[in-house]
Amino acid sequence: MLKLKKNEQRRLQSGHCWIYANEIDSKATPVSSFKPGEQVLVEGSDGKKIGYALMSPTHLICARLVSRDLKRHLDKSLLVHRLKVALSLRESIFDQPCYRLVYGDSDGLPGLVIDRYFDHYVVQINHPGMEIRLEELKQAMEKVLKPESVLLRNDGKSRKAEGMESYIKPLIGEPPELVDLVENGVKFQAPISTGQKTGWFYDHRINRAAVMQHAKGKRVLDVFSYIGGWAVQAAVGGASEVWAIDSSEKALDQLLANGELNGVGDKLTALQGDAFEALKELKNQNERFDLIVLDPPALIPRRRDFKAGLSAYRRLNELAIRLLSKDGMLVSCSCSMHLPKDQLTDQLRGAAVHLDRNLQIIGFGGQGPDHPILPAVPETDYLKATFCRVTQR
Amino acid sequence: MLKLKKNEQRRLQSGHCWIYANEIDSKATPVSSFKPGEQVLVEGSDGKKIGYALMSPTHLICARLVSRDLKRHLDKSLLVHRLKVALSLRESIFDQPCYRLVYGDSDGLPGLVIDRYFDHYVVQINHPGMEIRLEELKQAMEKVLKPESVLLRNDGKSRKAEGMESYIKPLIGEPPELVDLVENGVKFQAPISTGQKTGWFYDHRINRAAVMQHAKGKRVLDVFSYIGGWAVQAAVGGASEVWAIDSSEKALDQLLANGELNGVGDKLTALQGDAFEALKELKNQNERFDLIVLDPPALIPRRRDFKAGLSAYRRLNELAIRLLSKDGMLVSCSCSMHLPKDQLTDQLRGAAVHLDRNLQIIGFGGQGPDHPILPAVPETDYLKATFCRVTQR
Repeated sequence: MLKLKKNEQRRLQSGHCWIYANEIDSKATPVSSFKPGEQVLVEGSDGKKIGYALMSPTHLICARLVSRDLKRHLDKSLLVHRLKVALSLRESIFDQPCYRLVYGDSDGLPGLVIDRYFDHYVVQINHPGMEIRLEELKQAMEKVLKPESVLLRNDGKSRKAEGMESYIKPLIGEPPELVDLVENGVKFQAPISTGQKTGWFYDHRINRAAVMQHAKGKRVLDVFSYIGGWAVQAAVGGASEVWAIDSSEKALDQLLANGELNGVGDKLTALQGDAFEALKELKNQNERFDLIVLDPPALIPRRRDFKAGLSAYRRLNELAIRLLSKDGMLVSCSCSMHLPKDQLTDQLRGAAVHLDRNLQIIGFGGQGPDHPILPAVPETDYLKATFCRVTQR
Repeated sequence: MLKLKKNEQRRLQSGHCWIYANEIDSKATPVSSFKPGEQVLVEGSDGKKIGYALMSPTHLICARLVSRDLKRHLDKSLLVHRLKVALSLRESIFDQPCYRLVYGDSDGLPGLVIDRYFDHYVVQINHPGMEIRLEELKQAMEKVLKPESVLLRNDGKSRKAEGMESYIKPLIGEPPELVDLVENGVKFQAPISTGQKTGWFYDHRINRAAVMQHAKGKRVLDVFSYIGGWAVQAAVGGASEVWAIDSSEKALDQLLANGELNGVGDKLTALQGDAFEALKELKNQNERFDLIVLDPPALIPRRRDFKAGLSAYRRLNELAIRLLSKDGMLVSCSCSMHLPKDQLTDQLRGAAVHLDRNLQIIGFGGQGPDHPILPAVPETDYLKATFCRVTQR
């Protein structure tokens, strides 16, 4: 049992599911007395039972609620149930089995991410409570999903903070080097064991669909392109040409291959290099683009990086605005959880004022429906895509 | 010339375009010395010229910037230019000429709204600066748009605050009783002179498109349906049946007619009555729906209505959640400028906790691209559509 200090159950009762170390009644139940991943019944100081949580005793967030139903703790049967509920949401929305199937706390499975590529799955675990239940997870996935293969992509940075080792290995079957996927009707292949994160970023699906609609007849630039999620969809959407910038030669090779898969390889130009430098170079060469997508990695990875990261977002967006042709469109993204949407908007405002342009926001995009947000947990809402039109003043 | 107090030019320089009465250097340039609608050159206390503004001397917002280019003040030529810039945005995005063509400040035309229905236009003016330039506006519209008809729908509530009379009359040609429009490929007819606002609400276009995608096979309830923007699109999207609630018999008749226009009349059921009462009655009758759209009028029309309005949003959403079938979807909207998105989210959170449900937000929608947002003017960003899935805890 994990006992909370007085009043510390309120946030949990209002819907949040994280328990911080300083909220524990450490006389009654010292945090250090728990084993990593152990399941505990959480009790308020008033004796009211709140639910079951998984422990991570060395972490600031020392426990995460996994069930509010006192009759159901996390076991294979609850894993099966949660997978089914998560699956039914995705199946009701998407016409192809390519999506994030489980998005951690938002699907009632803290510390677990599962991405689906038809019958191949990639799992990311970042909590000891899931790590020690790998065998139950495997059985639950076999029962609900009948996977051809499951790859454990357990090399995320956040594992270190939880004291978990870093590894990549199969859980079920033989995961292929490249998996097929379809997003917004466009075909891709993604390198699940060597690519970024789980191999693909499903979170921007709806924003890429919007770019596809805006791209017709336009000269497009995709900055931080990775393997071409934006670039190839823009080309399929009717862009006249698409240039893509990425630091990885290998990612750009896959981008070109993904273009060929959809018969738009001839529209694509790949530029390997640092994005900031490449944008300056394009300006020196007097290149102009009608639509520019900026989808950088998290420039504010930790809260203490806020100031430096904010200024990087500002510089990046100014560099892009300078490259826009008349009345051009900028799609400015951020996946930094620590950057609120309004602050990205304000950087865009500042950049436009500084360059003496007028900026109209024609849409705010966020993460797709396979990345549900818990209203009580703002941390589950991290993705921004701001669609701007930049005109003369 | 309108002279500002010390430092009061900063907000304008950062991109905002409203000037409040208390920001004026009233010794140098008393507000009362200006005529309603008069155009003035705005000058900071440091003598720096900021741009041209239109005066509304009796209003708290006593002036609105209309040009930051000192060589261009508002005249027929600038009206023509602004209409063209606004038109080019819409033409680049929409495949049918049915949209909000001008959205006030966001299109550099303070106090002016123009909705387009093919070759028929509806104009709303809520600033004396536009009212006294009606003849130039007429000429500019004739030049850029060659309209078949233009209706002045000058009966908005905000005109009173500006000391302007209320009237509805043609500006050009003979506006028909009903106009045709197409939204997301679905046909409608809208009553432009007797309906709400300009006859139609284009702002929810992208949210209705999302509902159309989610509606397949579902039993749908559209609350505050007006003439069926949501209901008919849900039916066309493949809903098994759609019930619509509105207080206006006439609106519901038009909703049924719009259903017939698209061959889905047999799927629609119209319920006339107060929405809150009707929702309770449906609960008593044990009705359940798989997808419910709540699109109420602004329940917080003025800032001082905040508390009462917030509680009305809460009650409404609770009533709707009670009517959802298992794992059902709620699309909860608000057009209240005074209700921040996060506060609507928090009401949804509270409603779910109170009813012991789990609520996943699978998308945040806002106003469509024909209602651009100015990043420095948060007031231009008013529309919320929160897509939720409600599951058992």
